[in-house]
Amino acid sequence: MGVLAASVTMFGAAIAGAFGDCIVIFKTLEGMVRQPEMAGQLRSTMFIGVGLVESMPILGFVVSLMLMNK
Amino acid sequence: MGVLAASVTMFGAAIAGAFGDCIVIFKTLEGMVRQPEMAGQLRSTMFIGVGLVESMPILGFVVSLMLMNK
Amino acid sequence: MGVLAASVTMFGAAIAGAFGDCIVIFKTLEGMVRQPEMAGQLRSTMFIGVGLVESMPILGFVVSLMLMNK
Amino acid sequence: MGVLAASVTMFGAAIAGAFGDCIVIFKTLEGMVRQPEMAGQLRSTMFIGVGLVESMPILGFVVSLMLMNK
Amino acid sequence: MGVLAASVTMFGAAIAGAFGDCIVIFKTLEGMVRQPEMAGQLRSTMFIGVGLVESMPILGFVVSLMLMNK
Amino acid sequence: MGVLAASVTMFGAAIAGAFGDCIVIFKTLEGMVRQPEMAGQLRSTMFIGVGLVESMPILGFVVSLMLMNK
Amino acid sequence: MGVLAASVTMFGAAIAGAFGDCIVIFKTLEGMVRQPEMAGQLRSTMFIGVGLVESMPILGFVVSLMLMNK
Amino acid sequence: MGVLAASVTMFGAAIAGAFGDCIVIFKTLEGMVRQPEMAGQLRSTMFIGVGLVESMPILGFVVSLMLMNK
Amino acid sequence: MGVLAASVTMFGAAIAGAFGDCIVIFKTLEGMVRQPEMAGQLRSTMFIGVGLVESMPILGFVVSLMLMNK
Amino acid sequence: MGVLAASVTMFGAAIAGAFGDCIVIFKTLEGMVRQPEMAGQLRSTMFIGVGLVESMPILGFVVSLMLMNK
Amino acid sequence: MGVLAASVTMFGAAIAGAFGDCIVIFKTLEGMVRQPEMAGQLRSTMFIGVGLVESMPILGFVVSLMLMNK
Amino acid sequence: MGVLAASVTMFGAAIAGAFGDCIVIFKTLEGMVRQPEMAGQLRSTMFIGVGLVESMPILGFVVSLMLMNK
Amino acid sequence: MGVLAASVTMFGAAIAGAFGDCIVIFKTLEGMVRQPEMAGQLRSTMFIGVGLVESMPILGFVVSLMLMNK
Amino acid sequence: MGVLAASVTMFGAAIAGAFGDCIVIFKTLEGMVRQPEMAGQLRSTMFIGVGLVESMPILGFVVSLMLMNK
Repeated sequence: MGVLAASVTMFGAAIAGAFGDCIVIFKTLEGMVRQPEMAGQLRSTMFIGVGLVESMPILGFVVSLMLMNK
Repeated sequence: MGVLAASVTMFGAAIAGAFGDCIVIFKTLEGMVRQPEMAGQLRSTMFIGVGLVESMPILGFVVSLMLMNK
Repeated sequence: MGVLAASVTMFGAAIAGAFGDCIVIFKTLEGMVRQPEMAGQLRSTMFIGVGLVESMPILGFVVSLMLMNK
Repeated sequence: MGVLAASVTMFGAAIAGAFGDCIVIFKTLEGMVRQPEMAGQLRSTMFIGVGLVESMPILGFVVSLMLMNK
Repeated sequence: MGVLAASVTMFGAAIAGAFGDCIVIFKTLEGMVRQPEMAGQLRSTMFIGVGLVESMPILGFVVSLMLMNK
Repeated sequence: MGVLAASVTMFGAAIAGAFGDCIVIFKTLEGMVRQPEMAGQLRSTMFIGVGLVESMPILGFVVSLMLMNK
Repeated sequence: MGVLAASVTMFGAAIAGAFGDCIVIFKTLEGMVRQPEMAGQLRSTMFIGVGLVESMPILGFVVSLMLMNK
Repeated sequence: MGVLAASVTMFGAAIAGAFGDCIVIFKTLEGMVRQPEMAGQLRSTMFIGVGLVESMPILGFVVSLMLMNK
Repeated sequence: MGVLAASVTMFGAAIAGAFGDCIVIFKTLEGMVRQPEMAGQLRSTMFIGVGLVESMPILGFVVSLMLMNK
Repeated sequence: MGVLAASVTMFGAAIAGAFGDCIVIFKTLEGMVRQPEMAGQLRSTMFIGVGLVESMPILGFVVSLMLMNK
Repeated sequence: MGVLAASVTMFGAAIAGAFGDCIVIFKTLEGMVRQPEMAGQLRSTMFIGVGLVESMPILGFVVSLMLMNK
Repeated sequence: MGVLAASVTMFGAAIAGAFGDCIVIFKTLEGMVRQPEMAGQLRSTMFIGVGLVESMPILGFVVSLMLMNK
Repeated sequence: MGVLAASVTMFGAAIAGAFGDCIVIFKTLEGMVRQPEMAGQLRSTMFIGVGLVESMPILGFVVSLMLMNK
Repeated sequence: MGVLAASVTMFGAAIAGAFGDCIVIFKTLEGMVRQPEMAGQLRSTMFIGVGLVESMPILGFVVSLMLMNK
C-alpha cells in the first residue's frame, strides 16, 4: 500500500508543479513580448512565482519519500 | 489505510496550492505589464494573496502528516 | 474508515479554499489595475470575501479532525 | 458507514459554499470597479447573497454532524 | 445503507442550492450595476427566484432526513 | 436497495429543478434589465416556465417517495 | 434490481425534461425581449416545443413506473 | 439483468430525445425572431426535424420494452 | 449478458442518431434564415445528410436486435 | 464475453460514424449558404468525405459481427 | 479476454479514424469555400492527409484482428 | 493479461497518432488557403511534422506487438 | 502485472509525445504563414522544441521496456 | 504493486513534462513571430522555463525508478 500511496502523491506533485510553473512562464513570455523594457522585472517576479508555486509540490515530493518507506 | 489517506490529502493540497498560487501570480504579471507604475503595490497584494490561498493547503499538509502515523 | 473519511473531507476543503480564495484575489488584482484609486476599498472587500469563502472549508477542516479520531 | 457518509456530505458543503460565495464576491468586486458610487448598495446585496447561498451548505454541515454519530 | 443514501441526497441538495442561488444573485448584481434605478425591482425578483430555486433542494433536505432514520 | 434508489432519484430531481429554474430566472433578470417596460410580461412567462421546468423534477420527487417505502 | 432500474430511468427523465424545457423557455424569453410584438407567437411555439421535448421524458416516467413493480 | 438493461436504454432515449428536440426548437425560435415572415416555413421544417430526431429514441423505447420482458 | 449488450448498443445508437440528426437540422434552419431563396436546396441536402448520418445508428439498432436473442 | 465485446465495438462505430458524418454535412451546408454557386462541387466532396469518414466505422461493424459469433 | 481486447482496440480505431478524417475534410470544405480556385490542390492535400491520419487506426484494426484469434 | 495490455497500448497509439496528425494537417490546409504561394514549403513542413508526431505512436505500436506475445 | 504497467506507461508516453509535438508544429506552421521570412528560424526552434518535449515521453518508453521484463 | 506504482508515476511525469514544455515552447514561437528582434532573449527564457517546468517531472522519474525496485 505504501508504494501506491507514494506513487499517487508524486503523480499529483508532478502534474501540479509542471502545469503551475508553465502557466507562470507562459505569462512572463507574453509580458516580455508586449513590454520588452520590463523584461528584467518580469523575469525576477517569475522566479519568485515559480518558487511559491513549487512550495506545495515539493512538500508532496517529501511526503512521497516518507510514504515510500512505510 | 493510513498511508492511502495521507496520500490523497497531500495530492489535493499539492494541486490546490500550485494552481491557486499560479492563478494569482498569473494575474499579477498581467497587471504589471498593463500598469508598470503599480508593480510594487501589485506584488505586495500578490504576497498577501499567496499567503491566503496557501492557508488551506498547508492545513491539508498538516492533516496528511497526522494521518500518516495512524 | 475514519482516516479515509478525514482524508476525503480535507481534500475537498483544500480544493475549495484554495480555488475560492484565488478567484477573489484574481478579481481584486484586476480591479486594482483598472481603477488604482479604489485599491484600498477593493482590498478591504477582498479580506471580507476571503473570510466568507473560507467559512465552509474551515468547518470542513474541523469535521476532518473530528472524523480522524473516530 | 456513518463516517464516510458524513465525509461525503461535508465535502459537498465545502465545495458548494466556497465556490458559491466566491462567484457572488467576484461579481461584487467587478461591479464596484465599474460603478464606484454603488459600492455600498452592492456590498449589502453581497451580504444578503452570501447568506442565501450558504443556507443549503450549512444544512449540509448539520446533516454531516447528525450522520457522524450514527 | 440509509446513512449513505441520506448523504448522497444532501450532497446534491447542497450543490444545487448553492450554485442555483449564486447564479441568480450573480445576475442581479450585474443588473444593478447596469441599471441602478431598477435595483429595487431586481432585488424583489431575486428573492422570488431564490425561493423558487431552493424549492427542490429543500425537498431534497427533507428526503435526506427521512432516509436517515430508515 | 430502496433507500439508495430513492436517494439517486432525489439527487437528480434537486439538480435538475434547481439548475433548470435558475437558468429561466437568469434570463428573466437579463430581459428586465434590457427592456424594463416588459418586466410584467417577462415575469408572468417566468412563472409559467418555472412551472413547466419543475414538472419532471416533481414527478421525480413522487417516484422517490414511492421507492422509499419499497 | 427493479427499484434501482426505476431510479436510474427517472433520474434521466428528470434531467432531460428539466434542462430540455429550460433551454426552450430561455430562448423564448430572449426572443420576447428582442421582438416584443412577436411575444404571442413565440409563446405558442414555446408550448408546442415544451410538449415535444417532454414526450420522451414522460415515456421514461412511464417505463420507470413499469420497472418499479417488477 | 433485463430491468437494468431496459433502464439504461430508456435513460439514453430520454436524454437523446429531449436534448435533440430542444436544440431544433431552440434554433427555430431564433430563426422566427430574426425573420418573422418565415415563421410558417421554419415551423414546418421544425416538425419534420423533430420527427427525424425522435426516430432513433423511439426505437430505443421499443428496445427498452422488449428488454423489460426478457 | 446478451440483454446488457443490446442495451449498451441501443444506448449509443439513440445518442448518436438523435444528436447527429439535430446538428444537421440545426444548420439547415440557420441556412434557411440567412438565405431564404435556398430553402429547397438546403432541405433536400438535409434529407440526404440525415440518411447518411443515420446509416451507422441503424446498423447499431440491427446489431442490438441480433444481440438480444443471444 | 463475445456479446459484450461486439456491443462495445458497435457502440464506438455508431458514435464515430454519426458524429463524423454530421460534422462533414454541417460544414457542407454552411458552405452552400455562403457560396451557392459552389453547391455542386461541395456536395460531391461531401460524398467523398462521408465515404472516407465511414471507412473505419464500417470496419468496426465488421469486427463487431465477427466478435458476435465467438 | 481476447475478444474484449480486440473490441477495445477497434473502438479506439473507429473513433480516431472517423474524427481524424472528419476534421481534415471539415477544413478542406472551409478552404474550398474561401478560395474556390484552390479546390484541386486542397483536395489532393486532403487525400494525402486522410491517408496519413488513417495510418495508425489501420494498424489498430490489424492489431484487433491479431488479438481476436488469441 | 498480455492481450489486454497490448490492446490498451494500441488504443492510445491510434488516438494519439490520428488526432496528432489531423491537427498538423488541419493547420497546413488553413495556411495553404491564407498564403497559396507557400503551399510547397508548408507541405514539406507538414511531412516532417507528421513524421515527428508519429514517432511515439509507432513506438507504442512496437510495444503493443511485444506485449501481445507475452 | 508487469505487462499492464508497461502498457499504461507507454499509453501515457504516446499521448504526451504525439499531442505535445503536434502543438509545437501547429504553432510553427501558423508562424510560417504569418511571417514567411522567419521560416528558417522557426523551423530550427521547432526541432529544439520537439526534442525538449519528447525528453519525458522517451524516458517513459525506457521505463516501459524496463517494466515489461519484470 | 511496485511496478504498477512506478507505471502510474511515470505516466504522470510524461504527461506533465510533455504538455508543460509544449506550452512554454508554444508561447515562445508566438512571441518570436510577433517581435522577431527579441528572438534571442525569448529563447534563453524558454530554456530556463523548460528547466524549471521539468524539475518536478524529473523528480517523478526518479521516484518511479525507486518504486520499481521495491
